[in-house]
Amino acid sequence: MIVTAHKARFTEPLRLSGGAVLPEFEIAYETYGELNAARSNAVLVCHALNASHHVAGTYAGDPDNVGWWDNMVGPGKPLDTDRFFVIGSNYIGSCFGSTGPASTNPATGKPWGADFPVVTVEDWVAAQARLADHLGIERFAAVMGGSIGAMQALQWTLDFPERVRHAIVIACTPRLTAQNIGFNEVARQAIMTDPDFHGGHYYDKGVVPARGLRIARMVGHITYLSDDAMMEKFGRALRRAAPGYDFEIDFEIESYLRYQADKFAGYFDANTYLRITKALDYFDPAARFGGDLAKAFAQAKADFLVVSFTSDWRFSPARSREIVRALLDSRRIVSYLEIDAPQGHDCFLLDDARYHGALRAYFRNMPL
Amino acid sequence: MIVTAHKARFTEPLRLSGGAVLPEFEIAYETYGELNAARSNAVLVCHALNASHHVAGTYAGDPDNVGWWDNMVGPGKPLDTDRFFVIGSNYIGSCFGSTGPASTNPATGKPWGADFPVVTVEDWVAAQARLADHLGIERFAAVMGGSIGAMQALQWTLDFPERVRHAIVIACTPRLTAQNIGFNEVARQAIMTDPDFHGGHYYDKGVVPARGLRIARMVGHITYLSDDAMMEKFGRALRRAAPGYDFEIDFEIESYLRYQADKFAGYFDANTYLRITKALDYFDPAARFGGDLAKAFAQAKADFLVVSFTSDWRFSPARSREIVRALLDSRRIVSYLEIDAPQGHDCFLLDDARYHGALRAYFRNMPL
Repeated sequence: MIVTAHKARFTEPLRLSGGAVLPEFEIAYETYGELNAARSNAVLVCHALNASHHVAGTYAGDPDNVGWWDNMVGPGKPLDTDRFFVIGSNYIGSCFGSTGPASTNPATGKPWGADFPVVTVEDWVAAQARLADHLGIERFAAVMGGSIGAMQALQWTLDFPERVRHAIVIACTPRLTAQNIGFNEVARQAIMTDPDFHGGHYYDKGVVPARGLRIARMVGHITYLSDDAMMEKFGRALRRAAPGYDFEIDFEIESYLRYQADKFAGYFDANTYLRITKALDYFDPAARFGGDLAKAFAQAKADFLVVSFTSDWRFSPARSREIVRALLDSRRIVSYLEIDAPQGHDCFLLDDARYHGALRAYFRNMPL
Repeated sequence: MIVTAHKARFTEPLRLSGGAVLPEFEIAYETYGELNAARSNAVLVCHALNASHHVAGTYAGDPDNVGWWDNMVGPGKPLDTDRFFVIGSNYIGSCFGSTGPASTNPATGKPWGADFPVVTVEDWVAAQARLADHLGIERFAAVMGGSIGAMQALQWTLDFPERVRHAIVIACTPRLTAQNIGFNEVARQAIMTDPDFHGGHYYDKGVVPARGLRIARMVGHITYLSDDAMMEKFGRALRRAAPGYDFEIDFEIESYLRYQADKFAGYFDANTYLRITKALDYFDPAARFGGDLAKAFAQAKADFLVVSFTSDWRFSPARSREIVRALLDSRRIVSYLEIDAPQGHDCFLLDDARYHGALRAYFRNMPL
């Protein structure tokens, strides 16, 4: 499937949760399949930290750059683009094409840098609603995502209840735990104390806070995998004939983490990373209802499919069950699937037959 | 209990696991109680990463500096110094008084810095055996520790089987998992990429790699606590009236981690931290027996008490059960206690009645 990335420009200012106003913004997106005449077959796919609007397929002439959820989305795939019109949307604050910290601040003509506001999951959803308007989609058949993408799907059902028929919420949590926030704070401190961070204004200095990004990525990566999956994949295998009794690479896992860290620091923007972690920390739809998640969901009108994975210790099944319980308490229709799979949080990206089979069935049963 | 720190100097060279030779070294230690006439009541207490030989009591004129295991060791405590002669031993490579990277390299007259060799748990134990000789202790009633201290207790039973009657192995693992090594590698990378690290030769530069130490401490601290314990202690409580939508401290957990990080960076030595994490990574007594831990324990002659805590996700009960199974397979006498406690790895430092009661009984039943 050959796909093309698009950008939509929005010139009406967007007031953000923190009070700042984005005078104008762009959203990068892709679409797969065709919108039907009734405009009833649109599915919005929201992405997680390290991904983008490039959900499926490849670009012409670039066969190696495969969309991050290509095993899920495409012709004949669980989310079948022969039947559904699928939109992959980037979010504001990203470094993958939508307006973000590296974009030009119209007030100064220079990159926003540290002056780009902190954005929240609510802000991402508000901006995506403009994209939906732009594409002529009044109501989505489904909004879907894993991890941070699932938070967006949840938020859609709260902020635009009339516009979402189904929310598919995979490997999600209704709010971060103190441990989750703690790991995010490690990443932020690593970035912000990197001498090349320059308080967030590094774009014109010819440097990036690569040291901090490396650490952020390593910590993140460990939390995406289960202990068992890491043992299965790397074990205690050595990269050299014997331990070196020095600080070069001894174990495979060290090599893997350093490689992932270097790669990430080469393409991801530190200011974006900081803002995504803050959006995660702040996400807490129950907060304005005294912590009662069921009261929050009282606004929702969607049907829900919630999926969790047993080995996910970042957003564990217990967190998904909190969501399911609150949905039941608020009398929503909800299906819940807890899959016994070993790979940790990253399970949502993998091609597990039970997982994909359930998604396939859910979409097949969805009337258009 | 007023206590005094001592140092013992050893001038016979010590050949280390990695092949390097330490021409001479000192070990810092403290003792509590009196060695009996039969010299049969000595207990060696080994410490973990962030602790020292200051196990119990206080120094004269410094009442706030209480030993790290003061709830366990002292007159009338579970390890009763009215009956036992207890030795708190620092290990080589430490920054708390024993010879380590900040000590003077006799070959150059300058601090060892990066040239201080990587030391292993075996090396720590070999050096402690010299201390035992120095104190006239041929055989310990018990060698005891939690976490890295427990690794030393295990190693003692393998390298000096005739010298240990009982090993008390708390919150331990027979080897690090890939996830454990991964977190250690994050800490090392944070330290080694800090511009103030200077390849480990920072002592004469007037700086320390405080940024790296801060990150190392934050990551470590998160892994010492359970997710539930952190939620119980910090939850999602804010430090200010409302979210700031900036990168100042929002949540209590951020404040706590930054405080712990700053404190740690103010007193701990980065070169020591690097070496301790390597000692941890390398610890694997089964390795030289083809991975068969029971074969490793075939050398041991001690009786064992193994203790784990259900919420410890760093060295989980499953790891302690591996130790227990291998001990049983090698026909050792072993008692195993798995305590359902919520605080994570740090449980071994806390005053849990079941835990302390079991230790008290174990020591009380120990003939001298």
